[in-house]
Amino acid sequence: MPQHDTTPVPVTVLGLGLMGRALAAALLAAGHPVTVWNRTPAKAAELAGRGAVAAASVTEAVAASGLVIVCVSDYAAVRTLLGPAAPALAGRTLVNLTSGTSEEARETAAWAAERGAAAYLDGAILTVPQGIGTADAALLFSGPRASFDTYGPALRALGGGAEHLGADHGLAALYDVAMLGLMWSVLNGFLQGAALLGAAGVDAAAFEKVAGPGVGTVAGWLAGYARQIDEGAFPGDDAGLDTHVAAMDHLVHESEALGVSTELPRLVRETAARAMADGRGGEGYATLIRYFRRP
Amino acid sequence: MPQHDTTPVPVTVLGLGLMGRALAAALLAAGHPVTVWNRTPAKAAELAGRGAVAAASVTEAVAASGLVIVCVSDYAAVRTLLGPAAPALAGRTLVNLTSGTSEEARETAAWAAERGAAAYLDGAILTVPQGIGTADAALLFSGPRASFDTYGPALRALGGGAEHLGADHGLAALYDVAMLGLMWSVLNGFLQGAALLGAAGVDAAAFEKVAGPGVGTVAGWLAGYARQIDEGAFPGDDAGLDTHVAAMDHLVHESEALGVSTELPRLVRETAARAMADGRGGEGYATLIRYFRRP
Ligand SMILES: NC(=O)c1ccc[n+]([C@@H]2O[C@H](COP(=O)([O-])OP(=O)(O)OC[C@H]3O[C@@H](n4cnc5c(N)ncnc54)[C@H](OP(=O)(O)O)[C@@H]3O)[C@@H](O)[C@H]2O)c1
Ligand SMILES: NC(=O)c1ccc[n+]([C@@H]2O[C@H](COP(=O)([O-])OP(=O)(O)OC[C@H]3O[C@@H](n4cnc5c(N)ncnc54)[C@H](OP(=O)(O)O)[C@@H]3O)[C@@H](O)[C@H]2O)c1
Repeated sequence: MPQHDTTPVPVTVLGLGLMGRALAAALLAAGHPVTVWNRTPAKAAELAGRGAVAAASVTEAVAASGLVIVCVSDYAAVRTLLGPAAPALAGRTLVNLTSGTSEEARETAAWAAERGAAAYLDGAILTVPQGIGTADAALLFSGPRASFDTYGPALRALGGGAEHLGADHGLAALYDVAMLGLMWSVLNGFLQGAALLGAAGVDAAAFEKVAGPGVGTVAGWLAGYARQIDEGAFPGDDAGLDTHVAAMDHLVHESEALGVSTELPRLVRETAARAMADGRGGEGYATLIRYFRRP
Repeated sequence: MPQHDTTPVPVTVLGLGLMGRALAAALLAAGHPVTVWNRTPAKAAELAGRGAVAAASVTEAVAASGLVIVCVSDYAAVRTLLGPAAPALAGRTLVNLTSGTSEEARETAAWAAERGAAAYLDGAILTVPQGIGTADAALLFSGPRASFDTYGPALRALGGGAEHLGADHGLAALYDVAMLGLMWSVLNGFLQGAALLGAAGVDAAAFEKVAGPGVGTVAGWLAGYARQIDEGAFPGDDAGLDTHVAAMDHLVHESEALGVSTELPRLVRETAARAMADGRGGEGYATLIRYFRRP
């Protein structure tokens, strides 16, 4: 499959849940011949109407394309559904976009190699189905770089921000959980604030008008904190941890006063209080990395 | 002080910590005559070199300007330092940018009124000192709208995103803790991810290259979730809570496997698990607002 050939290659998509359907739709939109399969066949109907071939069996689906993408609930489901089709995997490049752990990704790479797959790429999707196919949707891949390059056009059809992290098959899953953890933190921080302001009669839409741009502001600080973490030096030249901790007390007190959950505020404060007890009140916020590293 | 007069008005800044110095510097840069005072006088020296008048006493400082801004560690310090200058407060508009609770803000409004202040605005600063004076720096104010309008040019000199929330003096403090909580959540989510990837040999700068834009992506979802919260309907049309919870297990397991803290991952999972136990696995993430509202 030489790179200068720009004809969209055939792609098979296994698993047509919320995400799998979005993946198949984006590939169709980019002009790829798409074969689909789902345990519950009805979910293939709409895609078939748009030109996808609904395979009668998973073996038939795997046989149809050199590039086979799987996206189901978990890795156990990947093995379960691919098991019967193992002989058809020979010579195929398997790209697994199912969420899992780095260990599962490495195991599945070995499993696919044993079954004669040409290559295995493990991937992570950092967006919602509605974001698939857009220019800035980020997808992360790990495994052989050459396979990522070969199938670059198809993978970028899923998201313009498709990126290769390295040869270690576990990397995409690791980045994925790190990014998901960050995502849940953002969402939970928003829900805590919405609950707090909601209890005072402010609606979530009004909070979002401040919160949305505010999250963007904080995102802009991460590169600086990352540098501090990598250098191991945490100057408190923006705000000292002592100033943060004083304000954390306010968050806990307001949450108590308004009768909303105090779990997240308390965890925030406890972590910072540990650093204060260690005499780090004059350091900057990123010094807390020590407490995330060491339980 | 008619609004069409664009001559920068005299402003007094009380408190010259990291933030107070940034506030005074931004006002000087915008052409305001600035009088400063700090408990530890040495911190006024650099600003005096740039044209600020360093008052010999807090009374002298308050007397010097119709607009008096105070930004110190906490509300107790505000009262302590303003106590001796109370008579000079008559006719002054006091703007308090110290972090505190909504109750403290309302109490201080009453305290200032009793001392004859013309008006009291309570404010919150949603940026670091380095952001002060920039076009998109957000500062939130609550209290009389007329005072915010009168001193609009001076307040916008501190940050182009200066905004009036409403007449209730407590609003700025409430938004502030909500926003700080969101900020700490973003930062802690980043630190968790940096710890996790760091344990696998990926440096924080590499993580930030994915995390920075990723946080921006999530920020773009908040308006939609806010709408769901305000409408009380949580369709799982992007991802079901069951899909999230499965991935939360991966975050906990990876954190355990790599020996980093599991506190934040466990709290994330526990909150979502509660919703699963209540049969909400098919709903969207924002359904968790229920558990942030009710402890
Ligand atoms: N939705 C998102 O926003 C999002 C974002 C990033 C990553 N992801 C990841 O993408 C993957 C799929 O998520 P989703 O949102 O599409 O979930 P979903 O809507 O619940 O779909 C799950 C899919 O897995 C299939 N499946 C489950 N167990 C199976 C088994 N034992 N054998 C065969 N097929 C099985 C289902 O088939 P049936 O139709 O027959 O049930 C369905 O196609 C997950 O790993 C998720 O973490 C999702
Ligand atoms: N830094 C930030 O990023 C940031 C962001 C948003 C909001 N804020 C808020 O801004 C306020 C100030 O923060 P900061 O970063 O400037 O803190 P800081 O650098 O620690 O400065 C604290 C200031 O408060 C003064 N002070 C404390 N107790 C006093 C007392 N009893 N009497 C008189 N003065 C007293 C200090 O005077 P001395 O110099 O004499 O000690 C100093 O001027 C806090 O409420 C903080 O939450 C800060």
